[in-house]
Amino acid sequence: MNALPPIAETDLRRASLCQLLHWLAAGRVQPAPLTEVYLQAIERLNPQLNAYVEFSPALMRDQARSAEHRRREGVIGRLDGIPIALKDNFDLAGWPTRAGLPDAGRAAGQDAHVVARLRASGAVLTGKTNMDEGALGAVTDNPHFGPTHNPHRHGYTAGGSSGGAAAAVAAGLAVAAIGSDTLGSIRIPASYCGVFALKPTQGEISTRGMTPAARWLDSVGLLARSVDDLTVLLQVLAGYDADDPRSRRRRVALSPPDWEPGKLRCGVLTQLPAIGVQPEVVQVFDAALATLKHELGEARGVDFEDWHFARGRRAGLLLMEAEMLGTFAAQLADTERPVSAKFRDMLAYARHKSAADYADAERVLDAAALKMRRLFAQIDVLVMPTTPQAAFPLHGPVPDSQADLTSFANLAGCPAVSIPMGRTPDGLPLGLQLVGPRGSDLRLLELAAVWSSILDAAPEYPVMA
Amino acid sequence: MNALPPIAETDLRRASLCQLLHWLAAGRVQPAPLTEVYLQAIERLNPQLNAYVEFSPALMRDQARSAEHRRREGVIGRLDGIPIALKDNFDLAGWPTRAGLPDAGRAAGQDAHVVARLRASGAVLTGKTNMDEGALGAVTDNPHFGPTHNPHRHGYTAGGSSGGAAAAVAAGLAVAAIGSDTLGSIRIPASYCGVFALKPTQGEISTRGMTPAARWLDSVGLLARSVDDLTVLLQVLAGYDADDPRSRRRRVALSPPDWEPGKLRCGVLTQLPAIGVQPEVVQVFDAALATLKHELGEARGVDFEDWHFARGRRAGLLLMEAEMLGTFAAQLADTERPVSAKFRDMLAYARHKSAADYADAERVLDAAALKMRRLFAQIDVLVMPTTPQAAFPLHGPVPDSQADLTSFANLAGCPAVSIPMGRTPDGLPLGLQLVGPRGSDLRLLELAAVWSSILDAAPEYPVMA
Repeated sequence: MNALPPIAETDLRRASLCQLLHWLAAGRVQPAPLTEVYLQAIERLNPQLNAYVEFSPALMRDQARSAEHRRREGVIGRLDGIPIALKDNFDLAGWPTRAGLPDAGRAAGQDAHVVARLRASGAVLTGKTNMDEGALGAVTDNPHFGPTHNPHRHGYTAGGSSGGAAAAVAAGLAVAAIGSDTLGSIRIPASYCGVFALKPTQGEISTRGMTPAARWLDSVGLLARSVDDLTVLLQVLAGYDADDPRSRRRRVALSPPDWEPGKLRCGVLTQLPAIGVQPEVVQVFDAALATLKHELGEARGVDFEDWHFARGRRAGLLLMEAEMLGTFAAQLADTERPVSAKFRDMLAYARHKSAADYADAERVLDAAALKMRRLFAQIDVLVMPTTPQAAFPLHGPVPDSQADLTSFANLAGCPAVSIPMGRTPDGLPLGLQLVGPRGSDLRLLELAAVWSSILDAAPEYPVMA
Repeated sequence: MNALPPIAETDLRRASLCQLLHWLAAGRVQPAPLTEVYLQAIERLNPQLNAYVEFSPALMRDQARSAEHRRREGVIGRLDGIPIALKDNFDLAGWPTRAGLPDAGRAAGQDAHVVARLRASGAVLTGKTNMDEGALGAVTDNPHFGPTHNPHRHGYTAGGSSGGAAAAVAAGLAVAAIGSDTLGSIRIPASYCGVFALKPTQGEISTRGMTPAARWLDSVGLLARSVDDLTVLLQVLAGYDADDPRSRRRRVALSPPDWEPGKLRCGVLTQLPAIGVQPEVVQVFDAALATLKHELGEARGVDFEDWHFARGRRAGLLLMEAEMLGTFAAQLADTERPVSAKFRDMLAYARHKSAADYADAERVLDAAALKMRRLFAQIDVLVMPTTPQAAFPLHGPVPDSQADLTSFANLAGCPAVSIPMGRTPDGLPLGLQLVGPRGSDLRLLELAAVWSSILDAAPEYPVMA
């Protein structure tokens, strides 16, 4: 054994999941000390970040011990010993699932599908992360659990609704995190916090045990520190689940398809200012495209003509709000632990909508499906900024347009990846979004991996002392 | 040439599509005279049956001439020269599509997907058949176009909403017919009129150009005089259509899978009286099962426990009615050509339902999908009567339960076949329904073909003078 120096704590907290798997395999670090580094970081930094709403040192240490035991036995899983966080709208047996609503104290009876798969893969579950109330929002300024701060700037939003999960990954309080994405809830915080995100093809990862938001739009989402990490997580979590009515029999090969950069047909969204994208975002986006110019193959401008981003987002919101009136009926009726007036008001909007209005909103699903098919008959991948703006102050106004660029992928059931593309003049991260046809998840990830290495724009992770 | 006797008109009007293809190929009959036989039968009998709301001798003869020309050229399609009827909710370029509502006089600009395929296959389109107003009903007693009579008993319903199509096939006014099935609209009239029907897997045949009733339930349906006819029609009409948002990439092989009777796991629906099936229907069903006992493999009773047929049908109705408020907005607003008070009242029911009620009704789709998966993990095919009752008098009360046994297949997206299984003591036909998992269409048809030949219960077609 050559005596290599121990790896510094900050490096363990900055490293990608794949890097950590390598260090674990090489014996450079053991599961227990690795978990201890993350646990201590959570205990030290969560009071200021508020990324976690609940975590359990005992549970983390217990899982780490099991991981060490498995390693001694030589029987380890794909994610063995890796600390991974869970958004608080996934069931973790024995823990309450709050979904950002007041804690009714009822513990989940069994693990969500993704949690069961994470356990089987040997992951060390760290805890439950903060989110918008009912996942209906993109700020993570939760009325019951407080705001999550952006690790890149205290007092600024981490985005949402998976804001706690993105902040935890960015700040080195989790190696990766599992969240949910109904109109952009995984990609928006990834853009604001400068991490990597995948919203897979609809039905690619089972949503069983995830608190539903909108049946036609819900997707499990992944947050990590590199594209390769997302690929590993997808391979662990994806697959058909007979108990999820919308789970699809996977048609994507588990090994990525061949891909020829020269032959890539890349569509770049145009007329960004007209659809409300901020000038500083356009600036960063154009700079990123310039850096990638040799990778974009025959890039062509794509304007969405007939497609209205804001209208799509509003239709999606109605589908969410109407369904939530049923999903959260008990919480809405609970006077002892009342939901916020804001949440009640948002759902009240749907309360005054008719069944015909809902059926009309659903027509947008058809429009999106056809738009997607026609678009991807001509291009292989659609490129655009992930968000029309960067993170904003927690106590300032909230822009309506946060999900305008992300919701199309949910309405059309497409996969979408967000990678850091640079920073605004005043230093806030921004995401580049790649959208592909249904089932192209691994191809998108392969593209995103190459582009990320060229952009090399992943913001230095703000590992606080 | 051996001089075989000409084929009698009644035989030409009783023959199956496959038999006619054989006679055409053998030169025993030519397209023009065959078409003439059907045209004269329509002109003679439609006044008493009212199966067609519109037909065109000129168009029929023109198509027949083209068919004769192709035959001389030796280049013929799969259905070349076969007279086929079309329910009046499919677009036929240049003809109005009434969907059972008052004729607004607007002609369709282009053919529905199925019409284009029928033309390409050389079929002779006979005309548009009668249906319930807006396809919302199962009686075909249309307030604007009058009632269609059951060919087996004048004054009795042909069922619906594809009543005109089923009556035309049963009475020898069309060799086969294309209809639609949202909660049972193809299978119910097939049961009452003693013909064969297929409601394919959701998305298997494109619904483009078909007046929508409920996006999650709509299916193109086929009516014919033998199971083999249904198979030929499915092979002509099925396939992916990029312009239909719910068209599926077909995963069923075009040649049927092997099938071992001994190994068949057949589920037979039990507790029929409890779910409102009439005693006379139970009697005919039991007799049919007794005849088929060597074919059912290891038959096991299946009770639907948690599944409530009536509730499923009611949820499906809400999905239809709410969507129709948008689809038929123009017709509902047209005071010069008003829809019936009954139709207006049915939609008014949805007008008073909320978006949350619609979202709740959609939960039934999930329940049906899971029920279907669990069911077909244990059995290969589910067998039950197609309808809880036989045809009833047009001027008597209308049972609520007509679609109770058929709607499950629509809610679950499954294929379902209806074949004649016998007659009630007073001589009215009844259908046996086979339901299989998504994509099992051809396997179901293969089973149905064997069973039909054993039941040999196809009622003598009432070829009226």
